[in-house]
Amino acid sequence: MSTTRSKDGHLLSRRHVLAAAAGGAGASLLGMTVKGAEADPTRVQGSAPSPLGARSPFEQIERKPVAGVVSLTPLERLEGTITPADLHFERHHAGVPRIDPGLHTLLMHGLVERPLTWSVDELKRFPSVTRTCFIECSGNYFPRAGEFSPPHLVCGLTSQSEWTGVPLATLLREAGVRRGASWLLAEGSDAAVMSRSIPIEKALDDALVVYAQNGEALRPAQGYPLRLLLPGWEGNTSIKWLRRLEATDAPAMSREETSKYTEPMRNGSIRQFSFEIEARSIITHPAYPAVIEPGWHEIRGIAWSGRGRVARVEVSTDGGRTWMDATLQGPALPKAHTRFGLPWKWSGESTEILSRATDETGYVQPTLKQILAARGPGSAPYHFNPITGWRVQRDGELRFNPTG
Amino acid sequence: MSTTRSKDGHLLSRRHVLAAAAGGAGASLLGMTVKGAEADPTRVQGSAPSPLGARSPFEQIERKPVAGVVSLTPLERLEGTITPADLHFERHHAGVPRIDPGLHTLLMHGLVERPLTWSVDELKRFPSVTRTCFIECSGNYFPRAGEFSPPHLVCGLTSQSEWTGVPLATLLREAGVRRGASWLLAEGSDAAVMSRSIPIEKALDDALVVYAQNGEALRPAQGYPLRLLLPGWEGNTSIKWLRRLEATDAPAMSREETSKYTEPMRNGSIRQFSFEIEARSIITHPAYPAVIEPGWHEIRGIAWSGRGRVARVEVSTDGGRTWMDATLQGPALPKAHTRFGLPWKWSGESTEILSRATDETGYVQPTLKQILAARGPGSAPYHFNPITGWRVQRDGELRFNPTG
Repeated sequence: MSTTRSKDGHLLSRRHVLAAAAGGAGASLLGMTVKGAEADPTRVQGSAPSPLGARSPFEQIERKPVAGVVSLTPLERLEGTITPADLHFERHHAGVPRIDPGLHTLLMHGLVERPLTWSVDELKRFPSVTRTCFIECSGNYFPRAGEFSPPHLVCGLTSQSEWTGVPLATLLREAGVRRGASWLLAEGSDAAVMSRSIPIEKALDDALVVYAQNGEALRPAQGYPLRLLLPGWEGNTSIKWLRRLEATDAPAMSREETSKYTEPMRNGSIRQFSFEIEARSIITHPAYPAVIEPGWHEIRGIAWSGRGRVARVEVSTDGGRTWMDATLQGPALPKAHTRFGLPWKWSGESTEILSRATDETGYVQPTLKQILAARGPGSAPYHFNPITGWRVQRDGELRFNPTG
Repeated sequence: MSTTRSKDGHLLSRRHVLAAAAGGAGASLLGMTVKGAEADPTRVQGSAPSPLGARSPFEQIERKPVAGVVSLTPLERLEGTITPADLHFERHHAGVPRIDPGLHTLLMHGLVERPLTWSVDELKRFPSVTRTCFIECSGNYFPRAGEFSPPHLVCGLTSQSEWTGVPLATLLREAGVRRGASWLLAEGSDAAVMSRSIPIEKALDDALVVYAQNGEALRPAQGYPLRLLLPGWEGNTSIKWLRRLEATDAPAMSREETSKYTEPMRNGSIRQFSFEIEARSIITHPAYPAVIEPGWHEIRGIAWSGRGRVARVEVSTDGGRTWMDATLQGPALPKAHTRFGLPWKWSGESTEILSRATDETGYVQPTLKQILAARGPGSAPYHFNPITGWRVQRDGELRFNPTG
């Protein structure tokens, strides 16, 4: 709730205090209206209808660009399950290309009966499917134990949208899959010519070639005008700016499935084609930079699994000694962010709050110790999904604990 | 699909032709890249991660402001069911107020045990509910038969969001409803001091006081920082900029429930408190200004009902002589826009396409003739939900037929 109390007892949110300190577009402090808002809005005619509805100047919200190649969704600022399109995380290997949809085509070739090329408009003529699901980068930032411990949430490389497009199975049926075609190479038209190999079974199952996100055209950072969507699989397999699909009898062994996006295991082997996102949950509220007061709060967060529905989320408010079942917000869709909540009365003493997801296959979100026992200390930071939480300090401040 | 063919056979969308004609930010015409997009985007490093993901310059989309008091959602440009927040329709009686959330409070008083006032932050501490549903203005623009016949869709006063807030039942339990309290007056803090009377049964059923829309804070035009949400009821009962709830033993008979938002009936009586939105459907694709070619298309649209789930949508491609069941896109949520689709092969002859929704109560969307028979010719334009469609001309152009 990020509330703090001023000396005269007036409730103020930390956000407003920060906004006022930063000289924001408008902010109230100690009951004083700074600018842009009316003390009594019923006395003044409001603004006229507009072509686009802007955000309130009191609600500035942004993604966090990091290291020139990603920007993180501010999950700690969001409710519900839909990520507004302009806040969907982005991750790219050579920047966001600017593509003219009138020139863009999708080529299907290789082990098919009829090589075909479709324009974007032609793809929109096929029967469409709309589906709500998350996309999570398998590198959704996770510091290895002991490296460092930032105060804020570090898991903003997962976002959710309602996607619309054509089933890839429809396009494969049009082209005619030849015997022996067991993989598809999917290739983007960015400067990295990003490509991944996809087993044909997934292509024929729930894969989509999407052109719309939350009702409107894809945003450029999410692959405009076309992206592959592989529900539940690691994000970079959902190739953005999709231009080519080649049916083959073996994986292409591209850079992104050999030197990257693989996991060294404890026994010296390398785990490759680890496509599925395993169950995970995070607490988004209360969360840094909120400062809480003793009393009732709702612990809220999101849970997700690439294998199906979230079946259960447990929350601990005593650092993992005891666990309670949180309420799941319906509809709990498969391969989708699912909201959970648990009312909690904070005593004012320091403690730690944690969450743990179980999906419908029975898979339980592991501890960091369990992950490291399986993969060894040299494991690259892909597919890290340990139980995490927040250290609640006596002063009401929160510190993210990425190691659970 | 709004495709057209240039003389050399290259597929071009009408949108690009129009954009090029208008000297838009970027457009391709006859294979020539005008500006802003690369002919081969793989040759150029793309743009870096950004705080907010902008739309493609090729996808300008806006609401349509009309008459200084509304702006319409461009339903004919959208897929799926979620309306991006900046495209949610707006309707207000004295403009959009600019409200400082740190100063805004909600008062509950009248026939309650304990009059209470909550700040926005205090409301966020209660257990929350997230729900996806439509809001439709009961005046969702409908020209009376014969008045005029615009070429475009005229039903953009319905939009859908994922809303998050606190159940009104929770707040009523906190305040303690006294015997005899059968209505709640809900009042906004805009310059119109917009108010409506709500039966206590609805308040205790599925009413919410919401603060978030599609994950983020409400937009000002949708009631920031607080709005009442009455799922399935006419839009103006979902009071925006909510500041006061007064429990009473009778409706307040405010302007918006006496001189407005009532329907004269054929027998001379006036229908009042006609809260529920009855089942309706519209075809959003193909739709003006698209120009279609003979061949396969998917007829797509949305259907909704304020009484529950959409059970069935039928589509006619021969002006109503025969009807086929469209496919409903799941999950079909109650009181929510639901997508339907039907593949259709257009012969190139002029015809008319129509849609008809049935909800889970068995209610069937009526014809205009049926509505006028019940209400008489003097009926005000509220709660008009007749079957509508598109006249498909031989040249592939489409004209909205608001009278079915």
